[in-house]
Amino acid sequence: MKKHNFSAGPCVLPQEVLEQASQAVLNFNNLDLSLIEISHRSKDFIAVMDKAQALVKELLDLPEGYSVMFLQGGASTQFLMTAMNLLKKDGKGAYISTGSWSKKAITEGKNLGSIDVIASSEDKNFNYIPKGYTCPEDADYLHFTSNNTIFGTQFHEFPEVSEGTVLASDMSSDIFSRKIDVSKFGLIYAGAQKNMGPAGTTLVIVKDEILNKTGRDIPTMLDYTTHISKESMFNTPPVFAVYVSMLTLEWLKKNGGVEAIEKVNTAKAELLYAEIDRNPLFKGVAAVEDRSKMNVTFVLTDDSKQEAFDKLWNDAGVSGLKGHRSVGGYRASIYNALPLESIQVLVNTMQELEKLS
Amino acid sequence: MKKHNFSAGPCVLPQEVLEQASQAVLNFNNLDLSLIEISHRSKDFIAVMDKAQALVKELLDLPEGYSVMFLQGGASTQFLMTAMNLLKKDGKGAYISTGSWSKKAITEGKNLGSIDVIASSEDKNFNYIPKGYTCPEDADYLHFTSNNTIFGTQFHEFPEVSEGTVLASDMSSDIFSRKIDVSKFGLIYAGAQKNMGPAGTTLVIVKDEILNKTGRDIPTMLDYTTHISKESMFNTPPVFAVYVSMLTLEWLKKNGGVEAIEKVNTAKAELLYAEIDRNPLFKGVAAVEDRSKMNVTFVLTDDSKQEAFDKLWNDAGVSGLKGHRSVGGYRASIYNALPLESIQVLVNTMQELEKLS
Repeated sequence: MKKHNFSAGPCVLPQEVLEQASQAVLNFNNLDLSLIEISHRSKDFIAVMDKAQALVKELLDLPEGYSVMFLQGGASTQFLMTAMNLLKKDGKGAYISTGSWSKKAITEGKNLGSIDVIASSEDKNFNYIPKGYTCPEDADYLHFTSNNTIFGTQFHEFPEVSEGTVLASDMSSDIFSRKIDVSKFGLIYAGAQKNMGPAGTTLVIVKDEILNKTGRDIPTMLDYTTHISKESMFNTPPVFAVYVSMLTLEWLKKNGGVEAIEKVNTAKAELLYAEIDRNPLFKGVAAVEDRSKMNVTFVLTDDSKQEAFDKLWNDAGVSGLKGHRSVGGYRASIYNALPLESIQVLVNTMQELEKLS
Repeated sequence: MKKHNFSAGPCVLPQEVLEQASQAVLNFNNLDLSLIEISHRSKDFIAVMDKAQALVKELLDLPEGYSVMFLQGGASTQFLMTAMNLLKKDGKGAYISTGSWSKKAITEGKNLGSIDVIASSEDKNFNYIPKGYTCPEDADYLHFTSNNTIFGTQFHEFPEVSEGTVLASDMSSDIFSRKIDVSKFGLIYAGAQKNMGPAGTTLVIVKDEILNKTGRDIPTMLDYTTHISKESMFNTPPVFAVYVSMLTLEWLKKNGGVEAIEKVNTAKAELLYAEIDRNPLFKGVAAVEDRSKMNVTFVLTDDSKQEAFDKLWNDAGVSGLKGHRSVGGYRASIYNALPLESIQVLVNTMQELEKLS
């Protein structure tokens, strides 16, 4: 029996994607060769890369003038590349601090130049999204983390910036989960291993006209223009991760695209938050208005029930529910590929716990 | 029928590895979860990472004081990281230029500081390995490419350096193919996609004591000490690529390790080079004494036979034999996982061509 997989990432992927990927590792496109033993310059793999990029453009309704890259190194490498490619010599970067990942991005920016942290929710262990800040007009860019995987908060409205400031976002844990207006952004990046595919590749979307304006010498592999000019094939791409991302994006398209999955995601989140709010044994961690639809953080109101609850959900085939060490309690990560019925199974165990009490 | 896969990389992997990898994508370790949808912090994946590192240490007989990392970004990222981590402020790096990849490494070094190219074979389109050079005693490090995938040359003896100079090598296309004395090296790196696994991870082996001596501020993700201190788990590693690398190293160990495969590799190379030298229709590209045992480059002595030869090997189920555009002709990449019988099949087609002529 397949588990109900609430892992925060790497995380649940659609079963049909796993089956296609498994087959491709044995024999890809009936080539009598494995996907992972063909040249990345072969027409079969080039078609994969082209299709993956085309699906990103289609599913996110990308305007003209944006490039799509599949890189390596995770969001952690993007913390550096963002600053390298956007922060002008003698310029200034603005950041919103909403969790561990935001802070790591800030660290990389600070090592490179002048950085303003214009808003932070660190005062309450990042359990809310700051509001009422303004971004300085002279900032080269404003960086924020759209969804905070660890703390379970999410920007439901995006920051405003003036015309000369590039809006840049780490969307690792909520890209493709909801409609976004890409035209408001200059840079979006996301590690694949939540809603897009397996660990091993990072999606980067960039508005071409914002590049080459820093006056910096950027090392080849850290320069977005290197990868754009070679269509993410400057060097050998992470073949398997790109292929499985392509399959996952195909699955999303077949299931109605981002607009359709957003409705499902909303229904899933509402089902779980409703139980957290109704059931006196549970309490949500994040501020209600900033709750994430991807990562639901909650705690028991009575710690003595932990053993009983853990047994209930383990017995029900639920996995990956343990909260991050910096928050404690529980975290249900309910990404695109997690079906509504898995949420229902979890909600049932919460109700069982109440009956036992 | 499985193809005889002479691809230069990504390239042939052992069939049993492909079968295990395919199964793990469906259900890993009987967890009722896919390998690619579990947390990289789970004990099952930590065991994979630990085992992959232990196998590298065992198979290469690593001395004490060396660390093993599985990173992302390919050798192309290592060109930068080598210089960042080894080139002192106001120091000097020495390089040997033996092909396209060496030159890219040199470019990254030059962007960072002072670089000496102490020897080059560019005068003859890199068809030989330079000899008779000396490395300046004040060089922080000497960088060379142990095997030149494109041109089919290989260092059969490694450069000598003085005590204060770190020997650093890009071994992407011949690591694990022959015994090496790691104690002579401070840094070895290799993209996985030749003898170690699929594209998507890069092996780095470093002598710990050579680090932290440059006086540079190194960005987090480019600093080897970041990854050493977190055992290659500073951020989400490329789970699938590391797992398949582990499987491939297990296969190598089961088949007698590096010493045993070196004998097979020598027999394979001798079989093919003997035919190239014997058959008047073919001619090797690389200088005889510098011939690679991994990438065999050769041309037809009579171009008019190309169509006939291409038909013969295609019909025999051979794939990936086309030479790189900068050399032309043919390139047979005969990595660890390519069986001797595949070489025999290729040799047979060369003899058939002779009979037809």
